[in-house]
Amino acid sequence: MPKISQKGALMPQSPIRKLVPFAEEAYKKGKTVYHLNIGQPDIKTPEIALDAVKINSLDILAYTRSEGSDEYRAKIANYYSKHEIHLVKEDIIVTTGGSEALLFAFGSIMDVDDEVIIPEPFYANYNGFSTASGVNIVPVISKIENNFALPPIDAFEKLITPKTKAILICNPGNPTGYLYTKEEIKKLAEIVIKHDLFLIADEVYREFAYDGITHYSIMQEESLKEHAIMIDSVSKRYSMCGARIGCLVSKNKDVIATALKFAQARLSPPTLAQIASEAALQTPQSYFDEVKTEYVSRRDILIAELEKIEGVKVAKPKGAFYCIVELPIKNSDAFAQWLLEDFDINGETVMVAPAAGFYSTPGVGLNQIRIAYVLNKDSLVKAVNILKEALKVYKD
Amino acid sequence: MPKISQKGALMPQSPIRKLVPFAEEAYKKGKTVYHLNIGQPDIKTPEIALDAVKINSLDILAYTRSEGSDEYRAKIANYYSKHEIHLVKEDIIVTTGGSEALLFAFGSIMDVDDEVIIPEPFYANYNGFSTASGVNIVPVISKIENNFALPPIDAFEKLITPKTKAILICNPGNPTGYLYTKEEIKKLAEIVIKHDLFLIADEVYREFAYDGITHYSIMQEESLKEHAIMIDSVSKRYSMCGARIGCLVSKNKDVIATALKFAQARLSPPTLAQIASEAALQTPQSYFDEVKTEYVSRRDILIAELEKIEGVKVAKPKGAFYCIVELPIKNSDAFAQWLLEDFDINGETVMVAPAAGFYSTPGVGLNQIRIAYVLNKDSLVKAVNILKEALKVYKD
Ligand SMILES: Cc1ncc(COP(=O)(O)O)c(C=O)c1O
Ligand SMILES: Cc1ncc(COP(=O)(O)O)c(C=O)c1O
Repeated sequence: MPKISQKGALMPQSPIRKLVPFAEEAYKKGKTVYHLNIGQPDIKTPEIALDAVKINSLDILAYTRSEGSDEYRAKIANYYSKHEIHLVKEDIIVTTGGSEALLFAFGSIMDVDDEVIIPEPFYANYNGFSTASGVNIVPVISKIENNFALPPIDAFEKLITPKTKAILICNPGNPTGYLYTKEEIKKLAEIVIKHDLFLIADEVYREFAYDGITHYSIMQEESLKEHAIMIDSVSKRYSMCGARIGCLVSKNKDVIATALKFAQARLSPPTLAQIASEAALQTPQSYFDEVKTEYVSRRDILIAELEKIEGVKVAKPKGAFYCIVELPIKNSDAFAQWLLEDFDINGETVMVAPAAGFYSTPGVGLNQIRIAYVLNKDSLVKAVNILKEALKVYKD
Repeated sequence: MPKISQKGALMPQSPIRKLVPFAEEAYKKGKTVYHLNIGQPDIKTPEIALDAVKINSLDILAYTRSEGSDEYRAKIANYYSKHEIHLVKEDIIVTTGGSEALLFAFGSIMDVDDEVIIPEPFYANYNGFSTASGVNIVPVISKIENNFALPPIDAFEKLITPKTKAILICNPGNPTGYLYTKEEIKKLAEIVIKHDLFLIADEVYREFAYDGITHYSIMQEESLKEHAIMIDSVSKRYSMCGARIGCLVSKNKDVIATALKFAQARLSPPTLAQIASEAALQTPQSYFDEVKTEYVSRRDILIAELEKIEGVKVAKPKGAFYCIVELPIKNSDAFAQWLLEDFDINGETVMVAPAAGFYSTPGVGLNQIRIAYVLNKDSLVKAVNILKEALKVYKD
């Protein structure tokens, strides 16, 4: 029997996937499960986006240009200009989600055994994309005590080797909720310029910046012109994760030309979803204001409730809709499974994401979980209460 | 300024892409260009598929499961059973086009520097996917004189090394139009079993089998159970290239489990397109019969007209909607460009795909072009006439 590849064997499983069978068992037993584990928002997709697909008059669902349709790219450029990011459509390649943009970015700038430095905890699928690309992630630890702020620049500098090709940040962060300040971005700019590296910023949560703070994009940093690669997506912005539309943005023409070749090989991003995404650009500011207000009130109640629990530590998020929570336990993998298998309050339990999967340093984050506040406030309060009661009886 | 990767530099350009600026120039001059160069059919998408999207009642465009929705996978399994291919949904992973299925297949079974043997000429993007995966294509030449039938098995056997992991065929073939016989598939089965290799078959043109011949899938070959990986797509079948839905099919559980990890990293195939693709499965047989009748009559007229041209050799296709044509010229790259730049009959010219891009052996196919018969008959006749007149005056 022929064998799978070593790369295939090394591909990580999603940290949540392992728990799915236990969740399914819980459903079968009739339990209600509050899902704090996923990044699929419950927010409605703007109607204007959904309607555009319903009234489309295509009679042949054809490929678009590999880099995305010209109209759509021009309109994205316009969207960015409202965020003080000044681009032309030639700086943009439309991708199948931010996911594909990450894959194209990795492939365009890194070869096998090259290294990318990423502050951890980080979005777990960076592991998958780097394994798929044969690239090594070099983690630099950010700490819950500092709300997961940027680690000191010399911590990065110590890790730079001749193989280092890029630093990758997620801003605002999944799973940390941390929003980098302009000063932090400037520090990163300095170091990547000094060492001639790329700076990749995953800004898919750009719109989710709270407490009156304005998101500062790497594309606003003039000095980064040739160094910056921005990853973006409509998934979270318009709650249209299933569209599978994102983009890779760079002013570095070699990067764009190279990413385009990856894009050509796979022909075209999805056509219907581009129609929806183009229409979504007309979403009024009020939509975002409402969504933000909703997330902020969820966050506030979530944090307040969590802080009431003995022995729990939590970093207050300033963006996105996740937070990392440290629990008075030893192994959150086992705890998450136990919640699904053996615990409930009146038939209700919670599913959380064990945080170890968001770290690449072994043994770190074992007592942490990630909570996504993608549920309404009532459910959040109930879910945190279940967590609180569970912690009273749980034994590692 | 930081540099792109070696891999990125090696990524091939699409063989057609180089001609695009010349086509754009031709438009600007007011020329009409008959596009014989692309695989984008002019056939209408089944209305049932387009309508399903229009009447969908989703209010959140959410991710589906990474392997595709259960309903859709169950229905695809049912579609295959009508083609004597017997599967369960667990054998299927829904992908973003056949393109992504190819990428997942390569990643799941091959490591950097591994080899895949492919009869050439082959679908040009196999080059892109192998470069992206760090894999080497080892070509085995099939010949226009034999209509591009399977090369003798010992030609394959000679090329097998310890690094060989798979043989990849495209059936029916793009760009050859060749449809492998059951006997040829059985010969391939024998050799992959003997050498413990995978057999990947790209069957995206399955429905386009002409002259009463029934397509024989590698999935029908019992002995290949652990060896067969089938690539499929709705792109051509339902003329919905822009949907971006395909699948990877295998009864080898390790392959499926591994491909699933690649699928998880990118989260989900497109949701709207899955709705369209699920509905497309209800397309009546009459649609395919009509489409086939149309392609057969196009093919017949195309071949008849081409054979009238002095010095032209053409392999009669039995499937798909492409054929390779040998011209009495030295360099079809230059010829294709000249057609766009310097030739027209009453303001009309043609765009063809130079065939060198479909070969991986340097210097082969330089006097060949690929013609896609995705135009109506009148246009095809006019286009071939332009080609004929052009050849009278063209000087290499
Ligand atoms: C930080 C981050 N980047 C990228 C993605 C990829 O999203 P998509 O491929 O849906 O755009 C996600 C999705 O959860 C994410 O959280
Ligand atoms: C032979 C072959 N395989 C795969 C594909 C990929 O198609 P898609 O990604 O649209 O399914 C094509 C498209 O032209 C093709 O011709």
